[in-house]
Amino acid sequence: MADNDPEKLRAKLKDFAARFPLFNLLGVEVVEVNPGVAKARVLLRDDLKNANGVMHGGVIATLIDISIAQAMLMTDEFGRVRDTRGSMTSVDLRVKYLRPLSAGYATCVATIPHLGKRLCHASAIVSSDEGKPIALGDSTVMLTLGDAAR
Amino acid sequence: MADNDPEKLRAKLKDFAARFPLFNLLGVEVVEVNPGVAKARVLLRDDLKNANGVMHGGVIATLIDISIAQAMLMTDEFGRVRDTRGSMTSVDLRVKYLRPLSAGYATCVATIPHLGKRLCHASAIVSSDEGKPIALGDSTVMLTLGDAAR
Amino acid sequence: MADNDPEKLRAKLKDFAARFPLFNLLGVEVVEVNPGVAKARVLLRDDLKNANGVMHGGVIATLIDISIAQAMLMTDEFGRVRDTRGSMTSVDLRVKYLRPLSAGYATCVATIPHLGKRLCHASAIVSSDEGKPIALGDSTVMLTLGDAAR
Amino acid sequence: MADNDPEKLRAKLKDFAARFPLFNLLGVEVVEVNPGVAKARVLLRDDLKNANGVMHGGVIATLIDISIAQAMLMTDEFGRVRDTRGSMTSVDLRVKYLRPLSAGYATCVATIPHLGKRLCHASAIVSSDEGKPIALGDSTVMLTLGDAAR
Repeated sequence: MADNDPEKLRAKLKDFAARFPLFNLLGVEVVEVNPGVAKARVLLRDDLKNANGVMHGGVIATLIDISIAQAMLMTDEFGRVRDTRGSMTSVDLRVKYLRPLSAGYATCVATIPHLGKRLCHASAIVSSDEGKPIALGDSTVMLTLGDAAR
Repeated sequence: MADNDPEKLRAKLKDFAARFPLFNLLGVEVVEVNPGVAKARVLLRDDLKNANGVMHGGVIATLIDISIAQAMLMTDEFGRVRDTRGSMTSVDLRVKYLRPLSAGYATCVATIPHLGKRLCHASAIVSSDEGKPIALGDSTVMLTLGDAAR
Repeated sequence: MADNDPEKLRAKLKDFAARFPLFNLLGVEVVEVNPGVAKARVLLRDDLKNANGVMHGGVIATLIDISIAQAMLMTDEFGRVRDTRGSMTSVDLRVKYLRPLSAGYATCVATIPHLGKRLCHASAIVSSDEGKPIALGDSTVMLTLGDAAR
Repeated sequence: MADNDPEKLRAKLKDFAARFPLFNLLGVEVVEVNPGVAKARVLLRDDLKNANGVMHGGVIATLIDISIAQAMLMTDEFGRVRDTRGSMTSVDLRVKYLRPLSAGYATCVATIPHLGKRLCHASAIVSSDEGKPIALGDSTVMLTLGDAAR
């Protein structure tokens, strides 16, 4: 079955991400998707800057939120949600800003340190092209199984 | 002096916001700016939705970040930063998502419950057109005075 | 039935709090309990200080956690949890420290701005005897109904 | 000079911790102190339990706060604060509760992923004796240099 073949699922997710309107609006590219780990990035453009001329904190927050969701998509836990047509929602999102990004890509790696039945705790780090940490993020994600049989 | 006339400052800030590239990209409108209080909103469009068809958490986070910065701009504390060419930076941003927004505007009201010498604690609530709370936000903002004489 | 009489429930909760071991260890007093609002306080003693001689951040965090739980106890939502022998657990706790407390009581008022079916968002403010804000807190509380019939 | 000899400093810090009133009140033991890493633990006793009979969230928060401060004490950055009689204060504290602790020790390992000039971002994980994660914590710590010459 397609959904059980990791390569097919990965290809499907990447294709979905490449055409996703918000990602295109901001220029967010999903670089890697694995069960519990994902990488995404966004190139600094003039219309993603704040008044100080560096990447806007909201863009960084959005990149983190996207990366964390991507890290969930290939987990078995989310597979059950998909199979039963349940839902995945973010309970919260937290970003700690470490230093400004003034050029190049912001690249985010998200992981899921705790995958519970209902609540998952996700973590993310955003780095510059020089490998300097730009921001740390975390999020609590709630999974709710649906009623649908597969 | 222009900066000391609240009405002129307010007009200048509104004009700046109306032409600000990121705000235009997302459709964020700054509705009100007062010392320590500001209101901004964004209309749900297809390219601001997540995969569930509701407003993306990153867009809500961005709206909160913008609203909090606007609430700082007319405070005396930020006035001193502006006068000395210092800087204002977000230390962190936190969003708690209460319910999805499926249509209309997300409207954010930001306030600054604690204005310290260096650290300010800001708070925000995002509501739907029906007045239902969509998200709560908070942020720690750091003010650094510059060296410039006025 | 006793649990449906607010005065009897309040008296029971206050009595429970007055004898609760952790509260006695730290000297935390529950001052007021109402549905969705509670007040508790703790007097600064030498063994509640940090190395700077002011109230330890962990004590303030504990006071906030206690106050938020107390604010939940008389809500209808928690009543259903109690009746079905379900459980109430904190998903997270956040404290923002505004200024040190060097003498007297830390008094915390907790409220519940959002009471959802499963997730509640609670908020708290801690003040000194002079009414100065010492800390802000928030917490996400999860309610799980039990199987027990009443 | 004593403060520059890591072994003497470590011994001094451990001795200070062993006699520190709040640590004794709760039974918190500082197990290891290194530059940027520290470990502390607390044994569950009846007077550290919440109403569900497991370790109170405030005690876990306090253990995290203590461990993070200990992880700062041997860093060069804090050394400069100590030498100039400056101050170290927690800006915030966040705890995510993963599962209850019903017996044995809560052991916390704290690290400092980002040591800035003024702001440091600390991280902590609390585990049970079986090695299961009980809670995740993080804190922003502000360092302020003093005026004192050494």
